[in-house]
Order: sequence, then structure tokens, then C-alpha cells
Amino acid sequence: MRESAVAVAPREATDSETGHGGAPLECCPLYHEAIELVGRRWTGAIVDVLLQRPALRFSEIAAAVPDISDRLLSERMKELEARGMVRRTATPGPPVRIEYALTPMGHSLGPALGELKAWAQHWLGGE
Amino acid sequence: MRESAVAVAPREATDSETGHGGAPLECCPLYHEAIELVGRRWTGAIVDVLLQRPALRFSEIAAAVPDISDRLLSERMKELEARGMVRRTATPGPPVRIEYALTPMGHSLGPALGELKAWAQHWLGGE
Repeated sequence: MRESAVAVAPREATDSETGHGGAPLECCPLYHEAIELVGRRWTGAIVDVLLQRPALRFSEIAAAVPDISDRLLSERMKELEARGMVRRTATPGPPVRIEYALTPMGHSLGPALGELKAWAQHWLGGE
Repeated sequence: MRESAVAVAPREATDSETGHGGAPLECCPLYHEAIELVGRRWTGAIVDVLLQRPALRFSEIAAAVPDISDRLLSERMKELEARGMVRRTATPGPPVRIEYALTPMGHSLGPALGELKAWAQHWLGGE
């Protein structure tokens, strides 16, 4: 309806803008797997909390992640362990001490989550 | 059960490792909102596809994002538009041409998603 709408009609010279001019348009399957993994409800928050300490107990994670039930946190921790992103360690007691720590795979999510945090602070912070 | 488990018992000198030694342990609410937003099923893939071109038609996005129904894609595009991350433009026809493009807010997710893509290629690519 607006004249200015014409400006976004497809243009041929898009290479310099996108850097992908000639590439087929597709979503990288590995990236898709990663965003669905880290983006699962609570998972991103759990990884963020684990990035802040060398190791944490279940109760410490539960206290730092808002509004998560113990049942769901337990499920997410098992998923992260199964994906090789978290290591669970039991120290003999009594009482037995169970702790969770990021593996190198989990730790190396730091830069991606750091960028997302910067984005969030810039774009969601002012609302 | 393992002797080595003792090694992950809490240590006092964690500041140099975490950079957050004295900070309270919590998940940044803005980051949490961002990861839940971008991590919503398909949203990360849609943004990735939109990052690759200046503007795209609905059918082009649908073809590039694997296994998404038109109904769900439509819902996600409306969400992204409502959040200010996508701009929808109608060019008068006939036929009317509807196109979607990232706003500066959506575009600036590029670095975060780029880091996640690098992580995915390194850690999920070899499986």
C-alpha cells in the first residue's frame, strides 16, 4: 500500500549486503540442532548459571534459575549430561555430594551466550 | 565413588576461573528472555534464513526452514514482527507481494547466531 514498500523488492546486487549472494538459501542443520538444544525451555538459563562457577549442586542451580521445578531441572540436567555438555560427579559422604560442572563442550558455549546477553541488554533492556 | 571426584569439590579460589567469584549466582533476566525468544522452536532457524537475504517471501522462508508447517511459520513470523525483529512489507500488485526482512534489532542477532553456528560445527559436526 505504501510507495516505500517498493524499496524492499528483490534486488540482484545482494552479495555485498548478505555475503551469501550465490549460496542456496537454507538453515544449517547443525546450527538448527544447536539452537533447538540450547533454546529448550530453561536450558539456556541452566548453562548460563553453570558458566558462572566451576561446579554447582543441584539446589544451587535450582535457586539461581527462576521458576523451574525440581522435576524439570532434573530432566534438563540429564539431557545436558547425555549430550556431553555437563558432567555429574558424586563425592562419597556421608553425606554424598553431587555436583554438576560444564564439560569443555558446555564451556565453549560461553562466547555465543555472551553475544546473546549483549544483544539482550541492548535490545530488551530499554523496554 | 571415584577418588578423582574430590577434585571438583568447591574451592575458594574460583574468581580467576569464573570472573564472577563474588557475584551472586543468578541468571540474567534479559538474557533469559532472549534465549527463550530466539530458542522457541523454529525461531532460530527463521532468523538464520532471514539473515542470509535482504528480504524474503513467505514461501521462500518456508522452503528454507526444514519441516515447518505454514500455520506455525505464520505464527512465528507474527511473533517476530510483534517483537520488532521482523518487518513485513506489502508491495501493491496484482499480485500483491508480501515480503519479510529483519529490522536492525533482528539483524543484530547475527554475531550471537554466528558464534552458535561455529560452536555447532565444532561440537556437533563430528558426531
